[in-house]
Amino acid sequence: MKIHTRREFLKTTALAAASVSLAGSFASRARAAGTDRKIGFALAGLGNLSTRQLAPALQKTKYCRLTGIVTGHPAKAEQWKAQYQIPDRNIYNYDNMEQMADNPDIDVVYVVTPNALHAEHSIKAAKAGKHVLCEKPMEVSAEKCRQIIDACQQAGRQLAIGYRLHFEPNNLECIRLAREKVFGDVKIIEAGFGFPIGDPTQWRLKRDLAGGGPLMDVGIYALQATRYLTGEEPVQVSALTTVTDPVKFREVEESIVWQAKFPGGAIAFCSATYGAQGLAQFTAHAQKGWFKLDPAFNYGGIRGLRSDKQEIHLPAIDQFAAEMDDFAQCILNHEPTRVPGEEGLRDVKIMMAIYEAARTGKTVNLA
Amino acid sequence: MKIHTRREFLKTTALAAASVSLAGSFASRARAAGTDRKIGFALAGLGNLSTRQLAPALQKTKYCRLTGIVTGHPAKAEQWKAQYQIPDRNIYNYDNMEQMADNPDIDVVYVVTPNALHAEHSIKAAKAGKHVLCEKPMEVSAEKCRQIIDACQQAGRQLAIGYRLHFEPNNLECIRLAREKVFGDVKIIEAGFGFPIGDPTQWRLKRDLAGGGPLMDVGIYALQATRYLTGEEPVQVSALTTVTDPVKFREVEESIVWQAKFPGGAIAFCSATYGAQGLAQFTAHAQKGWFKLDPAFNYGGIRGLRSDKQEIHLPAIDQFAAEMDDFAQCILNHEPTRVPGEEGLRDVKIMMAIYEAARTGKTVNLA
Repeated sequence: MKIHTRREFLKTTALAAASVSLAGSFASRARAAGTDRKIGFALAGLGNLSTRQLAPALQKTKYCRLTGIVTGHPAKAEQWKAQYQIPDRNIYNYDNMEQMADNPDIDVVYVVTPNALHAEHSIKAAKAGKHVLCEKPMEVSAEKCRQIIDACQQAGRQLAIGYRLHFEPNNLECIRLAREKVFGDVKIIEAGFGFPIGDPTQWRLKRDLAGGGPLMDVGIYALQATRYLTGEEPVQVSALTTVTDPVKFREVEESIVWQAKFPGGAIAFCSATYGAQGLAQFTAHAQKGWFKLDPAFNYGGIRGLRSDKQEIHLPAIDQFAAEMDDFAQCILNHEPTRVPGEEGLRDVKIMMAIYEAARTGKTVNLA
Repeated sequence: MKIHTRREFLKTTALAAASVSLAGSFASRARAAGTDRKIGFALAGLGNLSTRQLAPALQKTKYCRLTGIVTGHPAKAEQWKAQYQIPDRNIYNYDNMEQMADNPDIDVVYVVTPNALHAEHSIKAAKAGKHVLCEKPMEVSAEKCRQIIDACQQAGRQLAIGYRLHFEPNNLECIRLAREKVFGDVKIIEAGFGFPIGDPTQWRLKRDLAGGGPLMDVGIYALQATRYLTGEEPVQVSALTTVTDPVKFREVEESIVWQAKFPGGAIAFCSATYGAQGLAQFTAHAQKGWFKLDPAFNYGGIRGLRSDKQEIHLPAIDQFAAEMDDFAQCILNHEPTRVPGEEGLRDVKIMMAIYEAARTGKTVNLA
């Protein structure tokens, strides 16, 4: 079952009336009456995510269309031009993005470049008057996250971070189970995400471009789960990292485990890895029962179980299509996104604290 | 299916030839020819574990018989005397245990009293010339563990700790999967055990008697899993604790999460709780796959799954009967136990380091 509109999406999740709040910005919103105008998206960075997920997802959206690309590879530009009928005037590289200012076909730039280039490309887009959808992690430092927020604010343009799971029905259902205390207070959350990484030359293994290892890339999902299930910000974190393959992992950690304490008394234990299999899950342990998703974080196949033996298996959606349609509607209706830059900044600050804890061997207190 | 002999036990586990080593003391042993003599067990402490597990298990053993009891409650003595035909001369209290020295009916004292009384009662048993089987955690400090070890050594008597899972086929199978690297090197282990504790007046919630909270009582199983799966001792630990019910948890933690680094590069993230449900599992994440038991630590129903979709579901045994029969055979054949006092001491030292890490907010290095 494919979901093409926000309304259908909400109907399938049975969440329309649940008033679930995600990081405080997630109350159900009244939408202005629809418009036929579709928001034009330019994808900046034509790697795997754009090729395999975002471009196909854009074909399934209701409020978006793929109108432009930004790439440093002329060969890729040719290929995309042919495949998606993108006119030459809508094809940019990273050095001429300012010319987008004159291009009404492009409303949003979706920044899908390596982590440490997000600020540069997001700021260029904002300065060209475009709204920005920026992949997660938002950037490699809190300072660079703030620069993106400031640039979008100064340009009067909207900024969202690519947290696709904030639109995924099974994750939303688990948020409901936690927030409505269906099994009582959630006391302990276990979460982990990882995979054995392939190509040793890829940018994800380079500190300058990635800002870190599996924590930045996949651990952020486990961190997000602990935050959206509790609805709170961690007040303490501690962490340990390991490397068993010092050739492949010269610059970033191979695996990391961390734990976090939340002000309401919940506690989380988490992991992220580029070295092992079978981590893509969370379990929330509460007073009167538990619930889990396994897998929780994949593009599809998300499902879970509750301690009362009920399955959690709401119909799959195209998460990227939902994410982009939501941002398009926020723009069309002048409404705030549920996944603003501030949400991306929070994660980056916490991840930096997790790295500090691992480096210093000390529990780090978060403001 | 009930297992009545070590031979049947080993046959059902398909481990007889596997030579799995648990903490270095677990190679398959050649047994001396059998004897008809049964080892006489006295249970010291007639709480739930003795009543519901150990006394029934003793009826299923091949090499043991319940010959005596030690209790501070005359009413319990009367009840056990009637139920198990225990002669008056084999009924002791904690003040006259030295008189056991003259009692040939009793070979072993199984110490099942609150944690902080294990040393006192184990040492009394050893001084009376009895072998000692001591429940876990061994004691509440490394020093008191050493006192037990010394007392048994000086008395020339054997000492074992009640690690029943060292005799449980599904846990042994997982040890085999880890040690034989069936899915490659194990990189990350997740383990947790806990339950919402009932009666707020019980000794497990009193620091003096328990030595700590859920870490001491159930977290020790998660800790054990990380140690017997890796076959290594952790070199670093860090930890966080929480309390959400300060009335019930005045003296000990309600929940604890900790993480541990192992010298071979594996890393573990763990939890223990008296406040939440659904924690009784471990998962080992390796390069080429994963395997897990859920539940892993219960008295029965232990089963699991491997990433190649094979179930792990070896026939259940009475874990306590297997544990006691093994100790009886060690005594009869003058062979070392796979669960010696040194193993109990190791866990207590690590748990004290975990508490130190939680208290100080610093990663603790273990020798």
